[in-house]
Amino acid sequence: MAGTLELEKQHRCFGGTLSYYRHFSDCCQGSMQFTLYLPPQAKDKSVPLLWYLSGLTCTAENFTVKAGAQRLAAEYDFAIAAPDTSPRNTGIPGEDESWDLGSGAGFYVDATVEPWSSHYQMYSYVTQELPTLVIENFPLDADKQSIFGHSMGGHGALVCALRNPKKYQSVSAFAPIAAPSQTTWGQNAFKAYLGDDTKFWAAYDAAELLNTQTLESEILIDQGTADSFYQDGGLLPEKFAEVCEQAGQKIKLRLQDGYDHSYFFVSTFIQDHFQHHAQYLQ
Amino acid sequence: MAGTLELEKQHRCFGGTLSYYRHFSDCCQGSMQFTLYLPPQAKDKSVPLLWYLSGLTCTAENFTVKAGAQRLAAEYDFAIAAPDTSPRNTGIPGEDESWDLGSGAGFYVDATVEPWSSHYQMYSYVTQELPTLVIENFPLDADKQSIFGHSMGGHGALVCALRNPKKYQSVSAFAPIAAPSQTTWGQNAFKAYLGDDTKFWAAYDAAELLNTQTLESEILIDQGTADSFYQDGGLLPEKFAEVCEQAGQKIKLRLQDGYDHSYFFVSTFIQDHFQHHAQYLQ
Repeated sequence: MAGTLELEKQHRCFGGTLSYYRHFSDCCQGSMQFTLYLPPQAKDKSVPLLWYLSGLTCTAENFTVKAGAQRLAAEYDFAIAAPDTSPRNTGIPGEDESWDLGSGAGFYVDATVEPWSSHYQMYSYVTQELPTLVIENFPLDADKQSIFGHSMGGHGALVCALRNPKKYQSVSAFAPIAAPSQTTWGQNAFKAYLGDDTKFWAAYDAAELLNTQTLESEILIDQGTADSFYQDGGLLPEKFAEVCEQAGQKIKLRLQDGYDHSYFFVSTFIQDHFQHHAQYLQ
Repeated sequence: MAGTLELEKQHRCFGGTLSYYRHFSDCCQGSMQFTLYLPPQAKDKSVPLLWYLSGLTCTAENFTVKAGAQRLAAEYDFAIAAPDTSPRNTGIPGEDESWDLGSGAGFYVDATVEPWSSHYQMYSYVTQELPTLVIENFPLDADKQSIFGHSMGGHGALVCALRNPKKYQSVSAFAPIAAPSQTTWGQNAFKAYLGDDTKFWAAYDAAELLNTQTLESEILIDQGTADSFYQDGGLLPEKFAEVCEQAGQKIKLRLQDGYDHSYFFVSTFIQDHFQHHAQYLQ
């Protein structure tokens, strides 16, 4: 039943509560998981909500275990919501066959091409259905939402923010796929989910979106220089920064010497991202 | 070949380096893994070494991913070494059949009973062979070592510290199996590894060791009250604290309301444990 939340697991953490929920998604026509951390202060008042979008192969859980985010959420007085990276067990043939398409690889788009379009509506899920659901059910301040993410989730965060400048007060990303139409895995995903006509890809390409939309807030991006996906041209943060400059979009792109693509990189710099969002949320 | 270190993985993390090593252990007569985090300051000088022993079913990796320890190690200027929880792939029949005996469940004892005794020499490995190896190979201050651990690893840390009061400057534990001879899983493991005669168990039971040995440093123990293993009598921290009091051993046992047995509990309180050890190591 749409809207009904099933609590699967719950842990006390840094004085707050980390919960794993499951619910039926109307958008994705299936059962979806997400995690929600409520800081101690949420007992007494509505708190700002920071969205985190994960990367390829991740679930709603990885971030909660690896990023060290709960400590900071408790300190900054933010809730953090993290959706799964795709629908699962949809019955779409081949959904589990590739690590970069189908399960774990929804790319935060609303698919328009069969067979994916019947379930893979992650953009609407992440920007509409899930925010409505959590804001209805928890002490969250709907006017104070920001978004960040890692890799495919960094791409998702940039796209969600640029397309919804009033909904999200700020955005940041760790090693995002920053210009997906120009990368192999972006092209593969967009072809499968959106079709061959590249004019339909622009709505899900942060670098393209900057042609028509900029944000008032500065964008923060961290990128490790030892990240093999970066070295192989799968992320392209400099291209994105170039477009930002042309568009007059404030951006801080930080190249972090010797860091790779892992959560050891994310955890090292996540405090700076909380600080970044705190400028706009507090 | 004994003493040869094979680097399997390495990540930059909080300005330092997290490495996963494999080597041949003479004690355990087989290939063993351990992890080592060196803080940024280790580039210039020898640093104190904090040992972490993990719980049942864990590998050398879990702690590095889940505990949030690297941030603190960089801040406090400590290295952290974490061994695996048992030998693996030894060929001992049934070694992988139980989650609480054999692989992942070495209990930090030197087994005396066949078939385990041929490989399961975790006490000597953790207190002798591995310290010698890492101190020879890395910029570590041999005179500044402390030890902590979680669950089975909390038991291990208490035993190692009480039996080697000059080697380890301090000890702490998260939800330790604090009086293993009085718990079901302690009894199962000790019977298998040490035999039926309980007089041989005392050397690996922290509560028993206090009859003959106390430490100058205070012992810190954190225990979550919502921990099902605690509730079911599998940990017995209060019994341990009682024996400490009788023996004149300083102890701080903190019951943490609503926390469970997970790393969400460990990560919440690990900063206090660093602070505890810093009193003795800095």
